[in-house]
Amino acid sequence: MNPVEAIVFDAYGTLFDVQSIQRKLEKLYNTRAASIGQVWRQKQLEYTWLRTLMQRYVPFTKLTQDALLYACEANGVNAQPEEVNQLMEAYNQLDVFTEVHAALQQLSQQVPLAILSNANQELLDRATTYNQIKPYFKDIISVDAVEQFKTVPTVYQLAVDRLKVSAERVVFVSSNTWDVAGAKSFGLQVVWVKRKQDAIVEQLGFPPDHTIEQLGDLSSLFFS
Amino acid sequence: MNPVEAIVFDAYGTLFDVQSIQRKLEKLYNTRAASIGQVWRQKQLEYTWLRTLMQRYVPFTKLTQDALLYACEANGVNAQPEEVNQLMEAYNQLDVFTEVHAALQQLSQQVPLAILSNANQELLDRATTYNQIKPYFKDIISVDAVEQFKTVPTVYQLAVDRLKVSAERVVFVSSNTWDVAGAKSFGLQVVWVKRKQDAIVEQLGFPPDHTIEQLGDLSSLFFS
Repeated sequence: MNPVEAIVFDAYGTLFDVQSIQRKLEKLYNTRAASIGQVWRQKQLEYTWLRTLMQRYVPFTKLTQDALLYACEANGVNAQPEEVNQLMEAYNQLDVFTEVHAALQQLSQQVPLAILSNANQELLDRATTYNQIKPYFKDIISVDAVEQFKTVPTVYQLAVDRLKVSAERVVFVSSNTWDVAGAKSFGLQVVWVKRKQDAIVEQLGFPPDHTIEQLGDLSSLFFS
Repeated sequence: MNPVEAIVFDAYGTLFDVQSIQRKLEKLYNTRAASIGQVWRQKQLEYTWLRTLMQRYVPFTKLTQDALLYACEANGVNAQPEEVNQLMEAYNQLDVFTEVHAALQQLSQQVPLAILSNANQELLDRATTYNQIKPYFKDIISVDAVEQFKTVPTVYQLAVDRLKVSAERVVFVSSNTWDVAGAKSFGLQVVWVKRKQDAIVEQLGFPPDHTIEQLGDLSSLFFS
């Protein structure tokens, strides 16, 4: 195992819990909330991939709003502008998972930490400030800088360049299975945070190096 | 409207009906067939996008088999090699939709026709031969030639190059909403075959030029 000189975290689903958006959806759309939430997330991902392939980058907030409009229409809901604003605003006030503060505090004493996210810089700055976790990070890196989304190698290269650490000495941590495959394919050491019991590894030929249940497990994995 | 000098068709879901694979799944997996079929198709698409982004191209048959293994595992099914072979074999014997023969015969008397598909060349050759539609096409084009999948511009450019017709004079026909967006973003004239009643246009900023219900509607759209 290569020595670890930096740890880089994915943001949404890994540090930030998107569950509160689901509660907001339920308030607005009742029984249709579950389906809207599922399609919203799926389309959000699809649009990051398709727009990168099409060379039609737009910031994550715009893309997320487009995905929401699709999800509402697909579920027969005529979303009002005020509702869309409320839901998009919820993205600025996501809580971190319960273990995140303690884990970041401990790890930040060992090696430099960073975030590498599809979200735009402004969204990341607001979310990390809101949760008071910004001081733990040496760098908060948005794909905005290269105008492409994960899983292009260019995005993971951005972390290597900004942190000035060679790829095999960077540990990348994500709950997203496709992100795990992308980072591993690029050449990072990869830890999968398996936050859902029934999640499985993608059949893309690039499984994670390690699998953990929550971020508190990172310290003993690398520094004990 | 620009004059039409060639018509290019997507293959799976547009010319070929994948419904027979669903029947094969039901025979093998009973009540879990619907969910396996849904995840299989979703992962097949995702893997075309992710592998292109990751610069890890593999032929469509390999990728489709990987997606099947994921879908079975995600549904708690331990797929046997013989079952996997049977399902993959079903891809070689897909029927075309009922109107396809008559529509292709009529259109091929007006302009050159072609196929542009994510599938590998061998699979396309077998499927068009099996359905006796090969003679209608001037060219059957696989993304194999560029080792990237839709929706990269390079793939749609391949059709323009091979047919030697300028992009705005090529009509591209697909039932897949993401493929519609990709082709329109590239600059082709695009017709969406809306084969499912509840399908909606993607929120990607590139809606189709025309929407039809089946391929028999093409002739009156362009040649009457």
